[in-house]
Amino acid sequence: MTGTLYGVGLGPGDPELMTVKAHRLISTARVVAYPAPDTGESLARSIAAHLLAPDLREIPMVMPMRVERAPAQAIYDAASETIAEALSAGEDVVVLCEGDPFFYGSFMYVFERLSERFPCEIVPGVTSLTACAAALKRPLTARNDVLTVLPGPLPDDELRARIEAAQSIALMKVGRHLPRLKALLSDMGMLDRAGYVERASQPHARALPLADLDGDSAPYFSMILIYKGDEAWMLPPSSSF
Amino acid sequence: MTGTLYGVGLGPGDPELMTVKAHRLISTARVVAYPAPDTGESLARSIAAHLLAPDLREIPMVMPMRVERAPAQAIYDAASETIAEALSAGEDVVVLCEGDPFFYGSFMYVFERLSERFPCEIVPGVTSLTACAAALKRPLTARNDVLTVLPGPLPDDELRARIEAAQSIALMKVGRHLPRLKALLSDMGMLDRAGYVERASQPHARALPLADLDGDSAPYFSMILIYKGDEAWMLPPSSSF
Repeated sequence: MTGTLYGVGLGPGDPELMTVKAHRLISTARVVAYPAPDTGESLARSIAAHLLAPDLREIPMVMPMRVERAPAQAIYDAASETIAEALSAGEDVVVLCEGDPFFYGSFMYVFERLSERFPCEIVPGVTSLTACAAALKRPLTARNDVLTVLPGPLPDDELRARIEAAQSIALMKVGRHLPRLKALLSDMGMLDRAGYVERASQPHARALPLADLDGDSAPYFSMILIYKGDEAWMLPPSSSF
Repeated sequence: MTGTLYGVGLGPGDPELMTVKAHRLISTARVVAYPAPDTGESLARSIAAHLLAPDLREIPMVMPMRVERAPAQAIYDAASETIAEALSAGEDVVVLCEGDPFFYGSFMYVFERLSERFPCEIVPGVTSLTACAAALKRPLTARNDVLTVLPGPLPDDELRARIEAAQSIALMKVGRHLPRLKALLSDMGMLDRAGYVERASQPHARALPLADLDGDSAPYFSMILIYKGDEAWMLPPSSSF
């Protein structure tokens, strides 16, 4: 009897925004794995820390902040083998995933390596996408709106064309791309349609009109939401943020 | 002291996929409101039914299945006024929302009417988008993939152009548009990249390759996910669904 690999979404950061199912699986877990930076605390572990049994086994997947693709693959290889040993020994393994396991998550690199060898279950979670809309108090999509989710690192020309084509746009992974993205949106005349959110639902969360954001730096967990659809009331005045 | 309007996401259907926060707010609610069909049960209410206090007040927002825009607005006007009376009397009102309140949800029509008059809090929920990816056991997006969410009722020409332009595509609200969408994807040579899910996480859920789906009808709660990105392993063979 092999164990089951669980990819468990934790939601955007507030421990109350994890699902009841995630809460149950984590509370009863005997083995957990999670991504961790080489210095400092694992965000995924911190969201679930209050639920971890004192004697459970932890498998941190330590990933340097700026790692090239090849060494990252070697780290996932090694972590997946450690997880595979536990599964082969009949233990279930709960992998803690920020947000949702399959929405721009690192869990997929473990899933890729193990899903054909072991039973696997995915527990979806609240994504940063809707957590940011909630923080801005602005609907993301209505009726037949097209929503496009764009990683901020994409080049300006591509972003411009895709922003022009959609009704609702989420720019993810803003981070160090903030000055470039803000200049692009200003040039497109879209600053007044853009809201900015950082660390949605986490301590020190901020949500404000992008036009009111001072400074040129943003944390990795930041997002810009733009609404261009027909529902004018979905663009609240600055004061309602 | 007025009450607070809570827009609470319930997730895709499995009561265990609601958040811990939704669970807490619904369990302690004195007044709840929810969308309901004119015949049959309210899906939103059914997801939360086990948590409702026996003596709480319920405000069903009864909406005929095929209603034109103007009468629908009148129904939201009336329901919002009933909710406003409770809020004015100092009661909190919890609006039960399938999925996430701001992701193609009807809650926004209540929010539009009341958010400037009363304190309002949005509790995000797991969307059908990631619940369907979990059901298919297929990642939705990796790295710098562009994700586009398309309502199925859009015309073929528009869908074709948008599907060609994105790496990951979710076709929402498939329902009666299934035969047309399947023909379009077949014509585009994309059938083998498409997965189909209906009623994700609900009783009688189904997840299978679109090419294996017989018949020309789909329930309203159905979705097609298409992956065109670079990660070939994100296209599992039929047998792994």
